Amino acid sequence: MAAGVAAIIMSLLPAVAWGQAVSSPDGNLQLTFSLTGNGRPTYELSYKGRPVVKPSHLGLQLAKDKHASKKFTETDLMDGFTVKDVKTSTFDETWKPVWGETSTIRNHYNELAVTLLQESDVVMTPDGDGAHHEKPGMEKRKREMTIRFRVYDDGMGLRYEFPQQKDLNYFLIKEEKTEFAMAGDHIAWWLPGDYDTQEQETQESRLSEIRSRFHDAVNWGNSSVAVFSETGVQTALQMKTDDGLYINLHEAACQDYATMHLNLDDKTMTFTSWLTPDATGLKGCMQTPCQTPWRTVLVSDDARQMLASDLILNLNDPCAIDDTSWIHPTKYCGVWWEMIVGKSSWNYTDEFPSIKLDNIDWHKVKPNGRHAANNAKVKRYIDFAADNGLDEVLVEGWNVGWEDWANMWKRDVFDFVTPYPDFDIKMLNDYAHSRGVKLLMHHETSSSTQNYERHLKEAFELMNRYGYDAVKTGYVGDIIPRGDHHFSQSMNNHYLYVIKEAAKHHIMVNSHEATRPTGLCRTWPNLVGGESARGTEYEAFGGSRPDHTCILPFTRLQGGPMDYTPGIFVTKLSEWSDNPSWARITLAGSLALYLTMYSPLQMAADLPENYAKYMDAFQFIKDVACDWDDSRYIEAEPADYITVARKAKGTDNWFVGGKCDENGHKAVVKLDFLDKGRKYDCTIYADAKDAHYETNPQAYTITRKVVKAGDVLKIQEAPGGGFAVSLIAK
Amino acid sequence: MAAGVAAIIMSLLPAVAWGQAVSSPDGNLQLTFSLTGNGRPTYELSYKGRPVVKPSHLGLQLAKDKHASKKFTETDLMDGFTVKDVKTSTFDETWKPVWGETSTIRNHYNELAVTLLQESDVVMTPDGDGAHHEKPGMEKRKREMTIRFRVYDDGMGLRYEFPQQKDLNYFLIKEEKTEFAMAGDHIAWWLPGDYDTQEQETQESRLSEIRSRFHDAVNWGNSSVAVFSETGVQTALQMKTDDGLYINLHEAACQDYATMHLNLDDKTMTFTSWLTPDATGLKGCMQTPCQTPWRTVLVSDDARQMLASDLILNLNDPCAIDDTSWIHPTKYCGVWWEMIVGKSSWNYTDEFPSIKLDNIDWHKVKPNGRHAANNAKVKRYIDFAADNGLDEVLVEGWNVGWEDWANMWKRDVFDFVTPYPDFDIKMLNDYAHSRGVKLLMHHETSSSTQNYERHLKEAFELMNRYGYDAVKTGYVGDIIPRGDHHFSQSMNNHYLYVIKEAAKHHIMVNSHEATRPTGLCRTWPNLVGGESARGTEYEAFGGSRPDHTCILPFTRLQGGPMDYTPGIFVTKLSEWSDNPSWARITLAGSLALYLTMYSPLQMAADLPENYAKYMDAFQFIKDVACDWDDSRYIEAEPADYITVARKAKGTDNWFVGGKCDENGHKAVVKLDFLDKGRKYDCTIYADAKDAHYETNPQAYTITRKVVKAGDVLKIQEAPGGGFAVSLIAK
Repeated sequence: MAAGVAAIIMSLLPAVAWGQAVSSPDGNLQLTFSLTGNGRPTYELSYKGRPVVKPSHLGLQLAKDKHASKKFTETDLMDGFTVKDVKTSTFDETWKPVWGETSTIRNHYNELAVTLLQESDVVMTPDGDGAHHEKPGMEKRKREMTIRFRVYDDGMGLRYEFPQQKDLNYFLIKEEKTEFAMAGDHIAWWLPGDYDTQEQETQESRLSEIRSRFHDAVNWGNSSVAVFSETGVQTALQMKTDDGLYINLHEAACQDYATMHLNLDDKTMTFTSWLTPDATGLKGCMQTPCQTPWRTVLVSDDARQMLASDLILNLNDPCAIDDTSWIHPTKYCGVWWEMIVGKSSWNYTDEFPSIKLDNIDWHKVKPNGRHAANNAKVKRYIDFAADNGLDEVLVEGWNVGWEDWANMWKRDVFDFVTPYPDFDIKMLNDYAHSRGVKLLMHHETSSSTQNYERHLKEAFELMNRYGYDAVKTGYVGDIIPRGDHHFSQSMNNHYLYVIKEAAKHHIMVNSHEATRPTGLCRTWPNLVGGESARGTEYEAFGGSRPDHTCILPFTRLQGGPMDYTPGIFVTKLSEWSDNPSWARITLAGSLALYLTMYSPLQMAADLPENYAKYMDAFQFIKDVACDWDDSRYIEAEPADYITVARKAKGTDNWFVGGKCDENGHKAVVKLDFLDKGRKYDCTIYADAKDAHYETNPQAYTITRKVVKAGDVLKIQEAPGGGFAVSLIAK
Repeated sequence: MAAGVAAIIMSLLPAVAWGQAVSSPDGNLQLTFSLTGNGRPTYELSYKGRPVVKPSHLGLQLAKDKHASKKFTETDLMDGFTVKDVKTSTFDETWKPVWGETSTIRNHYNELAVTLLQESDVVMTPDGDGAHHEKPGMEKRKREMTIRFRVYDDGMGLRYEFPQQKDLNYFLIKEEKTEFAMAGDHIAWWLPGDYDTQEQETQESRLSEIRSRFHDAVNWGNSSVAVFSETGVQTALQMKTDDGLYINLHEAACQDYATMHLNLDDKTMTFTSWLTPDATGLKGCMQTPCQTPWRTVLVSDDARQMLASDLILNLNDPCAIDDTSWIHPTKYCGVWWEMIVGKSSWNYTDEFPSIKLDNIDWHKVKPNGRHAANNAKVKRYIDFAADNGLDEVLVEGWNVGWEDWANMWKRDVFDFVTPYPDFDIKMLNDYAHSRGVKLLMHHETSSSTQNYERHLKEAFELMNRYGYDAVKTGYVGDIIPRGDHHFSQSMNNHYLYVIKEAAKHHIMVNSHEATRPTGLCRTWPNLVGGESARGTEYEAFGGSRPDHTCILPFTRLQGGPMDYTPGIFVTKLSEWSDNPSWARITLAGSLALYLTMYSPLQMAADLPENYAKYMDAFQFIKDVACDWDDSRYIEAEPADYITVARKAKGTDNWFVGGKCDENGHKAVVKLDFLDKGRKYDCTIYADAKDAHYETNPQAYTITRKVVKAGDVLKIQEAPGGGFAVSLIAK
């Protein structure tokens, strides 16, 4: 598996007790590890000689457990270390993702693994048990911890590893103390650090401005807000330095560990890791052998490389599913947007102040007349999908329990198997299959995770029985059991448990309000999508800024694809509903998102009747692929614009998309990626000259011509606009 | 169903705003309810004119939820009530338990149900959501609560009921404030109130002495101690007044509600309910319609009535299982005691400091040579059971994971389906069945409830596949998810969830370290046993006082049978193990427990080789029934002695047992319950003259004679001793 493992040359740093350096394969990045002061692990990172991470400490604070305390007075894993062993190596392999932006991915890094030894005399305290009085005393203790660095051409990852050992068997994490000392007061695109929601609008400011802007940056009305510090921010955190470096901090392979936030010391511009706690405030329960997730630093002087990076996927384990033939890219529409805007309802009745599933005869209750997931409507969506080459139809609100659900501390909120009386699950699946499409299951858990796990197997068996092969899960509201958080170790374990159980049933998962992804889709490619950010639904909740979708690829999408649910053509919702909100995007811009927001799962989110008004533009959504052999980021600047060209899987066809912020953008697309000497039918969906996301969003032009390699397309994007191009090989 | 419902005469009390009284069917108990002061619900209870509960308040304090707070400033349900409706009725029915102390049970009470109305102006606070600013304002609110009293000849129950209503839909309980004002400084037999363990030794003291004795009463070495107040005690709390009244406080039908403790104000001698919190400190999340468990007060001037009372069973719902044919009384032995005393081990290997189930090839690890649940040993136990008419054989330590389990915060601790390599599950079950016995399954959850629920269905399916029909569950150690407690609302829901899922698989449940029972075995008779108190295992952990088993029937057994695991014949463990502990009981006393500690599930806990030394005495364990047509409590005094006669189900045979404390007791048993004119072969297993629980425990006599109705047996019980009698109809 490993190709080209070789030792590399290291240099000792004179200024510290002990040090060792490792460079990226291209030599541009230099990572130096040292033990400073009282044996304290420290690292620094530079790019082309410019500081990226200034000397920063590594370590973990441990919590004292009432049971562990019987044996040991707990010592932190922060200092007092000596070096026991050092290993360096080079790794270079190319692997094929089940789906992705490219058909192959190169994983090439130099590695430094330092095994540290912490020897100490610890005070033993007496056992609390009256039956077994132990005398206080001293005991020698030896603990080992390995810090592993992988340095790539576009960044690095580091993690802590804990081998199985007598003196470090089980331990509790009070806090991980991984520092990232920035070299200046960079521009940052940040979200308020929060244990439960990632659905805020991104803020753009200097690091020094975070504190003063923090309060207003919080969407206090979100169903579960749990901020922890006025300088706490979420990852992936995208930054830009004044001298033009792009730096991104995130994590990879977060499994059975709490999600990491970053807390900024805004005097020193140093971030320190801040984990999500459990109900008791603990941040991790570990059993050796184990390791933390990778802490990642992407760096480049080219913003496009932030988007093209495969570093986070590479730091995840290879695919754990033997047979992946049932996993497929999916384009879908759904009974969804009309409920989001308030035109119809998930729930079936308004008869009761609250309901208990066991006490209701659904065939006797009074329907509210607004229930969307009914047989007639779902059949219309099935027809729309079949007529337009969409693969699946999401139906939300099909199952009983929507009358009262999130934030009631209601445990038994859904059973995931009982349809409302007007949703004939067998008939509708049979009808869908007869038309060559599938229904896409919906499991809103209401964050009552215990309830969901109790019903999970039966729910998946029902899906298998009727022919569903994908589920959208949801975690709206406060977590039950009470006190837990969306991004805690136990919840991260839950999300992965669901993915693994789904894989056993050959079910793809699209998880909403779950923890932000960290590349686990490499290992579990049935995790085809997720939300974990402010999605299109917020266009119906007051709207998101036009630059929002020019930021997400730099931040949220670093860890994996997002089910952003693009494709809103009728942006002023008041045109067809009584919702005054409006989407801050032009119609051509909405087409661009199918390229710029990479996902193997893409929704055509607007209503069939809205698409019917613009079928010439809708043609692009019908044509565009959602799995790719190659991707080329052509232009990129965070919060300003993104232009990308992608080659559709197994074809010679390319698609290009460009999206910009409120200022507009003139895209220059040199078609140097096309096969030389070949001609392509080119269709350009662009903003019309007078298009504007607010005043004239549906002004677009469709231009057709024949192009060849080397041609240049110059396309003007309107404020809040964009463009989409299809290039079909002749 | 209801027989003889009729209105009864009520008298208004002049001293309060409003009042109403209800008496027991025999007129001995008088319950008076009133609204005092500012509309505050108040009750008092008397027995034959003597005060049992002095005027005591009723009500609940509600917690403010961050979501609820958006709508209402929460008002407690403590006062401000007016009477909306009063209903009185009489109920008299006789029902047949699936198993029990008697073949029929009469449920006869007078009921008073007062529906209270609380009208208030509440301040509405603005919604936290920036998108939907609501103005502060006032709103009229009407809330209803019914307090229902049922008064029996031997006590009363009261509960709070909350009908479904617009202004009381979901609510959070900060604390239930049900008072029990005692009329004096009674003698009490109490356990320290604790959220996680009930395995302390009972204390006997005046109420006023609880505070000073509290610290020493706690078994601080128990695996999970969570005391909350120096005057906090557990229920069932047995008391005795100086004028000879016996009073017992407990609860009935605790479902989806936290277990109640009692906190004493030792100036006024008033107990107030104190619920078990969740991880966030909340004590209940309620959705109307709902109700609290019943709060029970047993009272009599005859201690025997405390033991004979069916009040708690009567306050539970009727059997919820249609086909109960698979539920049967069970006598069993097991591979258990030898691990408890330290002679052999649950775990299979000592090779690793800790284990992860997924990482171990059990066929390659090094066995420790001490693993008890091996094929050869289990076959010997099966043979012993078959040879002696025992129904089942419990085997603990059969499944992988015992190398490291409780109190490590280890989630994935057991899978409940993988046997150790030396336990051939198919062969052993086949062998057992060929010999006419069954194996009894063991599921130690290590209190990792999420893990247990994830595996529950598969674990029960495995039981069905191999022919197990009963499971002993265990909840040793701190609850996972962290912060939760053994007796919280969510854990009480978990225990009942397991019972209901087991019923679907026709599996009987015997739950150890679970919450103390409250009569739910009437509704779910597959709950055949439980621990929830200091069982026989403590005889190997330093021992329990000789009077322990003369207290448990007054306290722990009020809510349902206990799997006390009696039958230790060789009391000095040093005779055959290196454990210096010894059981504080004589051999004849250990036989008595099969009568005095009623349970449909009875273990012969000692080793086959120990029983082999005393086969003449073991004959009683072979003969004694564990299901009964009738029971007569002949003598009883808490912590002193209990004598009971029981008629074996479906036969004319009687068995009598007597157990006493460290002072010995002369039992006088008048055989007036025998059929007149009939003769019975009587075998008396008694302490020998010089028997003593410490110095001479195995000194016993076996006497045979023929007796008839009206004869009197006078039997001397030694210190820490007892006797057992079989009466076989000729």
